[in-house]
Amino acid sequence: MSVEAVLQGRIEAAQVKDIDKLMSYFAPEIVYYDAVPPLQFVGTEAVRKNFQRWFDGYDGPISLETKDQTVAVDGDIAWAHMLHLDSGKRTNGMQSAMWVRSTVCLRRIDGEWLVTHEHISMPIDPETMGVWLAPVE
Amino acid sequence: MSVEAVLQGRIEAAQVKDIDKLMSYFAPEIVYYDAVPPLQFVGTEAVRKNFQRWFDGYDGPISLETKDQTVAVDGDIAWAHMLHLDSGKRTNGMQSAMWVRSTVCLRRIDGEWLVTHEHISMPIDPETMGVWLAPVE
Repeated sequence: MSVEAVLQGRIEAAQVKDIDKLMSYFAPEIVYYDAVPPLQFVGTEAVRKNFQRWFDGYDGPISLETKDQTVAVDGDIAWAHMLHLDSGKRTNGMQSAMWVRSTVCLRRIDGEWLVTHEHISMPIDPETMGVWLAPVE
Repeated sequence: MSVEAVLQGRIEAAQVKDIDKLMSYFAPEIVYYDAVPPLQFVGTEAVRKNFQRWFDGYDGPISLETKDQTVAVDGDIAWAHMLHLDSGKRTNGMQSAMWVRSTVCLRRIDGEWLVTHEHISMPIDPETMGVWLAPVE
């Protein structure tokens, strides 16, 4: 499976909330910097629990649109960065849509590409110290 | 210069606010996701202006401590992720110290390692939608 296929596969698994499929793209040593605390989630158990929390915040599927994706691959390592529009119906009944930034680092381990690091975030407005949400059309 | 030397060099340049030295580590096509808006800064002019804004927020040098750094290099690409404790005296007179997450993506261009992407962030508390600050000892 190519790096691009791994990147796309993880998006598809997240959209339908298939936790086992989603976790299949991550290496055991995953270090995950998410939009939510703490600073980092280390290892698949912590990352899986955090994905489940994310899934549980949505009533039904999650929509993930991708733009501005750049991918670099050489030898047995790869990285990619992209913007995602994360949207859907929240469990509180509200429709939400927000742009997040994603950076993904991969290694080819025993011939298979796995995500060993992911970094998801939104900017913080320095005036209010609150989240800054990019306009959504 | 090794990837590790580039990572260390950019930290040293930032601490003494040497903007020309700091910019020398970035590729012209830099895509920068910073802790502050907007979603991304593209190109060295935008990145330089944003670094200057960061420098101007501190009265004197910026202290940057690094921990949990992981670096991967193969062929002509590399990536790294780490935590930084960013501290110093702010221009408002307050002493500030906060942990940020950093992911750095590099390419070797004409034999020289350059940063083509960096992602800096702090988590957001989903309850308040405000910044979540990790405890500082």
